[in-house]
Amino acid sequence: MSTRPDYQAILDEIHQEVLPQVGAGRVADYIPALGRVPADRFGMALRTVAGETFKVGDADESFSIQSISKVFTLTMALGLEGEELFRRVGREPSGTAFNSLVQLETENGIPRNPLINAGALVVADALLSHLEDAKGEVLEFVRRLCESDEVEYDQEVVRSERAWGDRNAALAHFLKSFGNLESSIESVLDLYVHHCSLAMTCSQLAAAFQFLAQGGKSPCDDRQLLTPSLAKRTNALLLTCGVYDSAGDFAYRVGLPGKSGVGGGIVAVLPERWCVAVWSPGLDPSGNSLAGTRALELLTTRTGESIF
Amino acid sequence: MSTRPDYQAILDEIHQEVLPQVGAGRVADYIPALGRVPADRFGMALRTVAGETFKVGDADESFSIQSISKVFTLTMALGLEGEELFRRVGREPSGTAFNSLVQLETENGIPRNPLINAGALVVADALLSHLEDAKGEVLEFVRRLCESDEVEYDQEVVRSERAWGDRNAALAHFLKSFGNLESSIESVLDLYVHHCSLAMTCSQLAAAFQFLAQGGKSPCDDRQLLTPSLAKRTNALLLTCGVYDSAGDFAYRVGLPGKSGVGGGIVAVLPERWCVAVWSPGLDPSGNSLAGTRALELLTTRTGESIF
Amino acid sequence: MSTRPDYQAILDEIHQEVLPQVGAGRVADYIPALGRVPADRFGMALRTVAGETFKVGDADESFSIQSISKVFTLTMALGLEGEELFRRVGREPSGTAFNSLVQLETENGIPRNPLINAGALVVADALLSHLEDAKGEVLEFVRRLCESDEVEYDQEVVRSERAWGDRNAALAHFLKSFGNLESSIESVLDLYVHHCSLAMTCSQLAAAFQFLAQGGKSPCDDRQLLTPSLAKRTNALLLTCGVYDSAGDFAYRVGLPGKSGVGGGIVAVLPERWCVAVWSPGLDPSGNSLAGTRALELLTTRTGESIF
Amino acid sequence: MSTRPDYQAILDEIHQEVLPQVGAGRVADYIPALGRVPADRFGMALRTVAGETFKVGDADESFSIQSISKVFTLTMALGLEGEELFRRVGREPSGTAFNSLVQLETENGIPRNPLINAGALVVADALLSHLEDAKGEVLEFVRRLCESDEVEYDQEVVRSERAWGDRNAALAHFLKSFGNLESSIESVLDLYVHHCSLAMTCSQLAAAFQFLAQGGKSPCDDRQLLTPSLAKRTNALLLTCGVYDSAGDFAYRVGLPGKSGVGGGIVAVLPERWCVAVWSPGLDPSGNSLAGTRALELLTTRTGESIF
Repeated sequence: MSTRPDYQAILDEIHQEVLPQVGAGRVADYIPALGRVPADRFGMALRTVAGETFKVGDADESFSIQSISKVFTLTMALGLEGEELFRRVGREPSGTAFNSLVQLETENGIPRNPLINAGALVVADALLSHLEDAKGEVLEFVRRLCESDEVEYDQEVVRSERAWGDRNAALAHFLKSFGNLESSIESVLDLYVHHCSLAMTCSQLAAAFQFLAQGGKSPCDDRQLLTPSLAKRTNALLLTCGVYDSAGDFAYRVGLPGKSGVGGGIVAVLPERWCVAVWSPGLDPSGNSLAGTRALELLTTRTGESIF
Repeated sequence: MSTRPDYQAILDEIHQEVLPQVGAGRVADYIPALGRVPADRFGMALRTVAGETFKVGDADESFSIQSISKVFTLTMALGLEGEELFRRVGREPSGTAFNSLVQLETENGIPRNPLINAGALVVADALLSHLEDAKGEVLEFVRRLCESDEVEYDQEVVRSERAWGDRNAALAHFLKSFGNLESSIESVLDLYVHHCSLAMTCSQLAAAFQFLAQGGKSPCDDRQLLTPSLAKRTNALLLTCGVYDSAGDFAYRVGLPGKSGVGGGIVAVLPERWCVAVWSPGLDPSGNSLAGTRALELLTTRTGESIF
Repeated sequence: MSTRPDYQAILDEIHQEVLPQVGAGRVADYIPALGRVPADRFGMALRTVAGETFKVGDADESFSIQSISKVFTLTMALGLEGEELFRRVGREPSGTAFNSLVQLETENGIPRNPLINAGALVVADALLSHLEDAKGEVLEFVRRLCESDEVEYDQEVVRSERAWGDRNAALAHFLKSFGNLESSIESVLDLYVHHCSLAMTCSQLAAAFQFLAQGGKSPCDDRQLLTPSLAKRTNALLLTCGVYDSAGDFAYRVGLPGKSGVGGGIVAVLPERWCVAVWSPGLDPSGNSLAGTRALELLTTRTGESIF
Repeated sequence: MSTRPDYQAILDEIHQEVLPQVGAGRVADYIPALGRVPADRFGMALRTVAGETFKVGDADESFSIQSISKVFTLTMALGLEGEELFRRVGREPSGTAFNSLVQLETENGIPRNPLINAGALVVADALLSHLEDAKGEVLEFVRRLCESDEVEYDQEVVRSERAWGDRNAALAHFLKSFGNLESSIESVLDLYVHHCSLAMTCSQLAAAFQFLAQGGKSPCDDRQLLTPSLAKRTNALLLTCGVYDSAGDFAYRVGLPGKSGVGGGIVAVLPERWCVAVWSPGLDPSGNSLAGTRALELLTTRTGESIF
């Protein structure tokens, strides 16, 4: 552990090794805007807490971060409400699909955790209760985190999500029927659809998640976004709930807290060391990037670094 | 079986016997308009296929028929589509609550049967695909069945249902996400909310269900609303799926095909003999009228008449 | 309804019509002794309350009646305990597979009804609490019902069931863990395996179920096996729970209370008229005889007789 | 991180702080032998990879380690079979109670992970396939790990578990029915009941789990019990599946891989630093030691050390 691994060399090796898997899996096509993304992309960016960045492949190409964005809204809501938030949403792995309504019914409208769709809707609702222009503030928050004004809501994805968003509308009405949404369904879905439509690059994501590697402190301005304790606890949530119903397998193979999105992105954190973002659109049956998960497994194996 | 039971005397006895239970149970209050109904009401009307009617108590007071209306829309849809309808909706008892989303998720958006909420939404959608003015035609259909122009949509209940209809909106969006709704969610919910808001009396209901006691033939104009085979099959659906998750208990105790509503009404059919409607607003935990179910149990016990 | 249908002619027609389906479906092979039964068999016997019997095909060939036997043990237990029995077992359709443990877990060890495996184990336990030689008395009871000493436990099936009975042993231990078995697991499973291994012919079954068509009165000796009320209620149980998770479909298509077994037999009852038994080993995916169900559907269609 | 925390002082503080909670919660009483344990016990032992041990309270009193023992058998099975083991058992959190049969049914007899009861039965079965005297070898393995010949199977607990083990017998028969047990049910349950009945002290447990803090290497003889990769992966399993259906909450509050038992013990691991064992018999509703979980939460808060 004394000498730092040669991250650039390791990323280059990983790139070579996963290339045969890039293009495998299934590109998310539940909305047309995602289905059009070329399957052959692969990018990866690792940024250390010292501020060094290492990249490979399409690390600077933007993609739809989708559910990864739930970590940003969760962070904002925790900043605003602290642990009060957990009166409305649990923190246990769901053991079922990310958009399942089943547990919601048997558990009286309290979503299992803030990283499944139902939970993220509750988080969005919490933001709307506190912020005048929640949509604008989420965008501003993410831009500051990665020090880039280029981050935008992808309006084509927004339109596509809205047109095909019946499952999420069902979840929102269901939550409302249990009294677990305060704002209008319209505004909750609008905020949710927007933050899921954020377009970012691996480099931007690796920077934006840096605060989770450094005890909640923003890398750009040293502001404490979360207390050290809440930052650790957010990492714990990522580990147990961040990758849909593959939490066990991801922890087993990769050994890092992480969050994936159906756009093919995954971000993972090694506390006190670094943060990594990987992107490849082909998904495994659980909805996680196939080549991306493999790349992260190789990263922790080659560097010998993980939380375990 | 040779001599006809003295129905009026039996109804009078039943009335006396259930009086202590009238007012027990819980009046449905999920919408304000229902919660305001006085709990102390009890009415019952039996009409034979020969056209005689026997009544007791509040048999001529209107109440919100709620889910009983699903039999009318099902009959109309079967008349229009025949058994084709069952490509979009099953015919098995659900074994779970009437507004459950659980089975819908595990069974790919095909509701278990047309008498639970999800199934009735599919039936409403089927009507909208065939009829220009579905709402008007449903009302007309019911009025002709009971030969009364006084039957109306209760607009106060309509407004109340709309304001509190998140669970049904969740079901509708969920069905849509599986591709099992053709018309707009707005129009499906509007038709559904209207037919559930029909206000009718026990006497009107006993007349309106008469066609199920006489092989599908309308009592007023001898029109064949359903083929004899489909009429029998509709009765079979009522028996296995008509009283929420109490199908087994209702069949066991009452022994008749029936349909209940959370307004406290229940209609039951003895094929080739008679049809009976009972109303009392206090519900048992499954959502069926407490005094109403007891009255029907007494009816089949005292007359010795049931399908078994 | 005035003239009796020509049952023999109708059975002959049905035989011709279902012949192409005989041999289709899948013969139960979860135990070797059942898997060896030839798939091409078809038999049917109808017996009226007047005592006339009509037969076709292999109506006098013995087969393993399997779950049909649960009606015999239920009748004996109801005779001994009356409705007290329902403190330990429900009477709702299960909506899931016949040997499911799921509901048992969520419903605290109370089986949904006495005709699924878990419920039948509770019924067997009830018999063991009352009878010294339950196994002997069940055999004697069935022999008297059909007036035939040829009915036997098929010892090869008994051995086969025992060797492959882990699912039922799991159910029994599970029931025991909830305190819902009094006798030893060994003795409960032994009785259960024996009664499921009864070998009978269609003619014998049609006779043995006659009491359910005549208000609980045994045809052989006029003994009242069940009160008229309990006989009706047993028919209600058959209708809602007798054919695994196809109750709705069977009621819809056939319109009679019935009980099926994985040996390919089905018995059905038209109260006050007749009782019918059919046998053909090929099963549909729910575990009911394919040709048998079709034959019963044709029977109620051709005769115009059903309970609805 | 440069100076080592004063573990002894911290343990002493924790002891004082949790004292009011010791005795709260419910002592496991599903078997009489556990129900007799005094509720007022509390012990804790922390052992660093450097070999230093810190203790407080009843750290040297033996208790029934129950499910904690599953980590020992899992380690042995992984040593014998490597990742092949995962063809018969998954590695996802179950999201349901530790002894649930539900998922087993819907997932074809493959337990969700090796740390729930069903999974541990499969692991026991794997050991029986490889070892002549599995029971003796498990005991020998644990004794060597903690360098103490005093560790024993508590025969009173063994007898008690056997007498009350219907739920586990149900699980075993169920697994067998899916073909996922090779040895006899009798021998699998015997091994399982024995390893759950191991009696150990906090000091012994902290020593015995040391190998998971040091990359799989046994502290006593430097033998590599697991490869470094498998040791990390076992820690990942503990984190996602080690504390019944509280994985998310435990990760959130404590932030360490851990394994609990209904005897009131919990062991947790901070890779490369230390291992800690805590014991207090009062359980929370999920079955984890109430005071024990609180003590671990205080430990990671006070030391500032956790994996996140």
